Amino acid sequence: MTRIQYQECIDACIKTMNTCNYSYVSSLKEYHLEELRESIRLDRECADICSFAIQAMTRQSPFVVQILRLCADICEACADESSKHVHRHCRSCIEACRECAAACRMISETVEVYA
Amino acid sequence: MTRIQYQECIDACIKTMNTCNYSYVSSLKEYHLEELRESIRLDRECADICSFAIQAMTRQSPFVVQILRLCADICEACADESSKHVHRHCRSCIEACRECAAACRMISETVEVYA
Amino acid sequence: MTRIQYQECIDACIKTMNTCNYSYVSSLKEYHLEELRESIRLDRECADICSFAIQAMTRQSPFVVQILRLCADICEACADESSKHVHRHCRSCIEACRECAAACRMISETVEVYA
Amino acid sequence: MTRIQYQECIDACIKTMNTCNYSYVSSLKEYHLEELRESIRLDRECADICSFAIQAMTRQSPFVVQILRLCADICEACADESSKHVHRHCRSCIEACRECAAACRMISETVEVYA
Repeated sequence: MTRIQYQECIDACIKTMNTCNYSYVSSLKEYHLEELRESIRLDRECADICSFAIQAMTRQSPFVVQILRLCADICEACADESSKHVHRHCRSCIEACRECAAACRMISETVEVYA
Repeated sequence: MTRIQYQECIDACIKTMNTCNYSYVSSLKEYHLEELRESIRLDRECADICSFAIQAMTRQSPFVVQILRLCADICEACADESSKHVHRHCRSCIEACRECAAACRMISETVEVYA
Repeated sequence: MTRIQYQECIDACIKTMNTCNYSYVSSLKEYHLEELRESIRLDRECADICSFAIQAMTRQSPFVVQILRLCADICEACADESSKHVHRHCRSCIEACRECAAACRMISETVEVYA
Repeated sequence: MTRIQYQECIDACIKTMNTCNYSYVSSLKEYHLEELRESIRLDRECADICSFAIQAMTRQSPFVVQILRLCADICEACADESSKHVHRHCRSCIEACRECAAACRMISETVEVYA
């Protein structure tokens, strides 16, 4: 697995971090804020693991497979939570998170685990 | 699992981040630097996941179990690598990393996974 | 400046990260959530810079002075925002943030800037 | 300042994080490792602040100006250190870091500081 091959996954993680952080900020401005408690929390979780995964891929971490599996899990949880809401920023999260989860799983299934 | 119950694991992660970052800086000053290439790399990996785990525990992340499992794996790899070297800062890493891995596994085996 | 001398500041940053993240989680559970929008946002900001500062101190970053000045600024902003609210977790933030800002300023005024 | 306007700076930070982490990994594999001690250290510093700055911009941090000033300082220090070395990965760092510093300074001079 070379730097080039990671690029698609890095891009997906950047897009998801961006989308989740935008949804986080937007949610905190919504009128019916009380419906978005869990969404705000998961947006931050998802942005944080995406940020961590991006760094890990660019420094060729020996643990990139395990980190991307975790990233995929959190992206899927964030997509599920976002799908309960009708706001446009929540809908954007669903798409970005699902694509990112798929990109993470593709790499984590084709690279051998560090041992 | 309350804030109090996490405290021991948070303390172990802080100690390990500190010890690994100290070993990282010390390794970069060693005369026989070329023997420490992998050690330097794993010290950074370990410090980074410990830092991430500390944040995750203090913000009561729903993914704390998975994050602590990953932290335990990386701590064990860092301890294994450190055990190949005789420098005092490497010996300190072995002890801190093994204790931290044990503390992470204890929590990750007693808390239910977010689903 | 040695590892020992940083320890007080590291401890203050850890306490503040912990207190701000606890206030973040607690705020998201409050009934009158809409009053805490800015507080939630600053709690995350403050926890994130404290986490960054802790890592920087433990890896003996050449930029520790500038990082601690930034950390002090953010801690003070978080303390100011927290002081608008009566919740116990907000009151805890005021104290932790002010102490942390003072600890950061003490180091940043006694250490020379990297040049 | 909108999300669109930050995009160029976010892209510059991503490129620099990527380039510095690649140089970090490549330096650790070089034969004359002992000449690259400071370069390895600054590559990590630079990647870490870039990662922090990216997150801060995407979450619309109220402290983005101060964070980008710090990022610019560290990018310039990393470019200066990289310019002492002839390796191709070091030359790439010079260019990425200088462009990133310029992008950070452009935003930090046109946005008002949070007060």
